[in-house]
Amino acid sequence: MLPVVIPATLPIPGAPVRIGDTLEEIETPALLVDLDHLETNIARMAKLFQGTRARLRPHAKAHKCPAIAHLQLARGAVGFCCQTVSEAEVLVVEGIADVLVTNQIVDPHKLDRLAALSRRAAVAVCVDHPEQVHQLEAACVRQDSRLGVLVEVDVGGGRCGVPPGSAAANLAERIAGSSRLHFAGLQAYNGKAQHLRGIEERRAAAVNAAEHASVAVAAVASRGLVCESVTGGGTGTFLFDLEAGLLTEIQAGSYALMDADYARNQSEPRTTFAQALQVLATVISRPAADRAVIDAGLKAIAFDSGPPEPLDLREARCQRPSDEHCELVLGGAAQSLSIGQKLRLAPGHCDPTINLHDWLVAVRGDRVEALWPIAARGYRWPGQSS
Amino acid sequence: MLPVVIPATLPIPGAPVRIGDTLEEIETPALLVDLDHLETNIARMAKLFQGTRARLRPHAKAHKCPAIAHLQLARGAVGFCCQTVSEAEVLVVEGIADVLVTNQIVDPHKLDRLAALSRRAAVAVCVDHPEQVHQLEAACVRQDSRLGVLVEVDVGGGRCGVPPGSAAANLAERIAGSSRLHFAGLQAYNGKAQHLRGIEERRAAAVNAAEHASVAVAAVASRGLVCESVTGGGTGTFLFDLEAGLLTEIQAGSYALMDADYARNQSEPRTTFAQALQVLATVISRPAADRAVIDAGLKAIAFDSGPPEPLDLREARCQRPSDEHCELVLGGAAQSLSIGQKLRLAPGHCDPTINLHDWLVAVRGDRVEALWPIAARGYRWPGQSS
Repeated sequence: MLPVVIPATLPIPGAPVRIGDTLEEIETPALLVDLDHLETNIARMAKLFQGTRARLRPHAKAHKCPAIAHLQLARGAVGFCCQTVSEAEVLVVEGIADVLVTNQIVDPHKLDRLAALSRRAAVAVCVDHPEQVHQLEAACVRQDSRLGVLVEVDVGGGRCGVPPGSAAANLAERIAGSSRLHFAGLQAYNGKAQHLRGIEERRAAAVNAAEHASVAVAAVASRGLVCESVTGGGTGTFLFDLEAGLLTEIQAGSYALMDADYARNQSEPRTTFAQALQVLATVISRPAADRAVIDAGLKAIAFDSGPPEPLDLREARCQRPSDEHCELVLGGAAQSLSIGQKLRLAPGHCDPTINLHDWLVAVRGDRVEALWPIAARGYRWPGQSS
Repeated sequence: MLPVVIPATLPIPGAPVRIGDTLEEIETPALLVDLDHLETNIARMAKLFQGTRARLRPHAKAHKCPAIAHLQLARGAVGFCCQTVSEAEVLVVEGIADVLVTNQIVDPHKLDRLAALSRRAAVAVCVDHPEQVHQLEAACVRQDSRLGVLVEVDVGGGRCGVPPGSAAANLAERIAGSSRLHFAGLQAYNGKAQHLRGIEERRAAAVNAAEHASVAVAAVASRGLVCESVTGGGTGTFLFDLEAGLLTEIQAGSYALMDADYARNQSEPRTTFAQALQVLATVISRPAADRAVIDAGLKAIAFDSGPPEPLDLREARCQRPSDEHCELVLGGAAQSLSIGQKLRLAPGHCDPTINLHDWLVAVRGDRVEALWPIAARGYRWPGQSS
């Protein structure tokens, strides 16, 4: 299946560039995706899943971009994870048939939209409290629909989720007892584990998560219920999750685009992904020999996982971002950088960086090959406020 | 002059709420502006400028919102600062007649748009290198227009800008020598000074900035040139800039909306502003007595200047944000917080928080009074890529 490429003959109002343009012609700051790297990453992950029993359900919160979702689907993804109802709505509108909201939804309007969406696609959602189950059931009654529901178990992340024993089993029973809900299994994700730097640290965290999840599976089984799906894992731990063998679905998302933070994880060559996501910036000021200022700051790049890293320049590092600026500290040959020069940066954290932009400029080598709307950014269901 | 209020009778596709709704009915995460606080802040600042020689030119990068700009204009603002060409374009389209881009612009497309914009409004821009002057001149020739140009002087911020002596004077002469450019004065802004916590620290930084700027004024004068405008200052230093008496224009922007970081500055009561900008969030999970999880994370709130601060709850603090989550550590009475409950947060940094949203929900007390598009967020000039 091909990505949703916008025809090159149509100039797109508000798009940052035209198809066929070179990197030099792109107005900055712009968010780029290197198509060669993206395709390599998606193919590499597909290959790693061959011969395993687990399915890949990539997290679409990372890219919010249906074009990338379709590339992943063409390489074996079974469906997608979303973090919000609006992300799920966008994916379904764009032809994705199976979405899992890996989150608790409690707003009545959102619950209605989620329940309505389940008439158009396979839709599941997570809970960690009976009150959420009650609200989901009520929304399904209002919308005359059914939802898949997973119990979120805390497997070491310490964010949402119930403990893996009787609390998980109680919730599973409550779900299974509802004529409007379908008990679909367990959400067993540990976000903290993804960013542990050492291979053995991440392996140990994955084993620990699998142990917690297997306690929950057994507790649920003791009530005569089966977990169709046990879903979790991410770009940092998927290899160890596959080894542990408990998860039926892996939720890795960042692998397709990558960021500087994930690149700091130690990894084997076969699980090393290329930096497909890049921010293109321009040098706007050269106030000192060892200092340049670029036009990409807090409004173009997320800094929560550290500063971006220049890809084209050795001996340059980013510091002191402000709204529309970032300083580059320059050494050696990097000091030849001049006003107007463009450079590419690897953002520290891909998800919130993408969320700052409305378009992904898809480049191959030096040329723009496609323009992809980041369709789920800021999206709201048409008429939701009418 | 009244703000641009969208008629209450029109449901707005994609808007997060309807006019007249209560806080409880707003889908979260949502960006709120408390209108009573906003009006108080704008009036307070207007009063502080009475009897001074300086003019207030608020920075619109903070809000990106024409409705707020018009409220500021009605209370004596002489025009606006922008950080990008697209911000300036939006303001001019929305009826603002005087804009200063407090930044270096080097992209040829942006230069053309800036030069074209100067046929519709008073437009000025900053430079800190002869190359930028050359490019501005060429754009004005292409667009058959004229631009005001200010020399940016480094007055202690260490970001952009030339030293205040002969380098500044050389640039001023170069500008004044162009038939297409008008030498409009000096940009003398120190961003670092705004966030020094102590009153005396900020006063000293303002005095130091004024001393640097006066060196530049003298250097320029020695070439027979007059600085019409010497512009700088911000929400942290404006009172001390007014005392120092050198700046003809003050660029404060954050005072209208405020954030938790500025609130940490020590200040006198008369220069203390109310927290008008608020993020509304919902508790989606209560996994432990001392922990709640809300639905506002890195994609709804900027964390570069620290976590947001709960406004309705004592004994609660935010930590460990992820894309769509933030943990609340709860003590005492805050432990009664339940799933579905909404709470308001003061973001750490207003500018990049606003940039994450498409709408400002303007509330008075518990009711939505207006919906304001954050029109300059992600804006691109129609047809700029055609």
